[in-house]
Amino acid sequence: MARQSIEEADETDAPRPRDGLFIRVYFGDGRHLGPGMIELLETIRSEHSILSAARRMGMSYRRAWLLVDEIARNFREPIVETYPGRRGHGTDLTPFGERLIALYREVERASAAASAKAVEEMRAALAPPMEEKAEG
Amino acid sequence: MARQSIEEADETDAPRPRDGLFIRVYFGDGRHLGPGMIELLETIRSEHSILSAARRMGMSYRRAWLLVDEIARNFREPIVETYPGRRGHGTDLTPFGERLIALYREVERASAAASAKAVEEMRAALAPPMEEKAEG
Repeated sequence: MARQSIEEADETDAPRPRDGLFIRVYFGDGRHLGPGMIELLETIRSEHSILSAARRMGMSYRRAWLLVDEIARNFREPIVETYPGRRGHGTDLTPFGERLIALYREVERASAAASAKAVEEMRAALAPPMEEKAEG
Repeated sequence: MARQSIEEADETDAPRPRDGLFIRVYFGDGRHLGPGMIELLETIRSEHSILSAARRMGMSYRRAWLLVDEIARNFREPIVETYPGRRGHGTDLTPFGERLIALYREVERASAAASAKAVEEMRAALAPPMEEKAEG
């Protein structure tokens, strides 16, 4: 269930149409790491709060919490630390949480650079956008 | 609608849990190319038939046809050619269809190579698989 939510997070977190590579890293046993999960961690980092991060990303606190829990259970080290004393700003990333973000963004960066030429050839072959496309 | 079907194709075409990078190439206006679409083209190539390819991939003929149509409308050049005279084996890829497969597989290959080190560090940080994971 939580895994499905994570895939939905990947699919629905883009307000504008995506451009470039969309990458999920799969670990061969169903576990994976994708852009929706990473964006949630980045938002928690800037908000210092799962609740504020959930609001900013337009998801329920429960859903955000389940996502964080799912990511955390996948790895040996904790990805967030909570400070019950700090009202409303009670959650920070651990160094490992930071590292996970950096690794995922490095996968994106390195992949985009390595495949730029092939993607460029695909783009050059695109048909002109149709009117109906602009609507959807 | 057809676009949604394509995303479902990406999600549902893996009989075993995926391992490594799952990549979709987005073109900034909603159009994209992903592994489900490419696998369908590869199956059409080997089956010489959209109907046989649909059967082998466990999807309806209508769905396969809509996917092929969706991919084809995204690009300037045709990706398949049909031969009405050849009963049951009436569809082949065009050279451009072949090129599209090659380009997508190159994006996958180059991306995996470029991000191998970061992915390896993620894998090393995974928690031991839990029993319940093996079920799902």
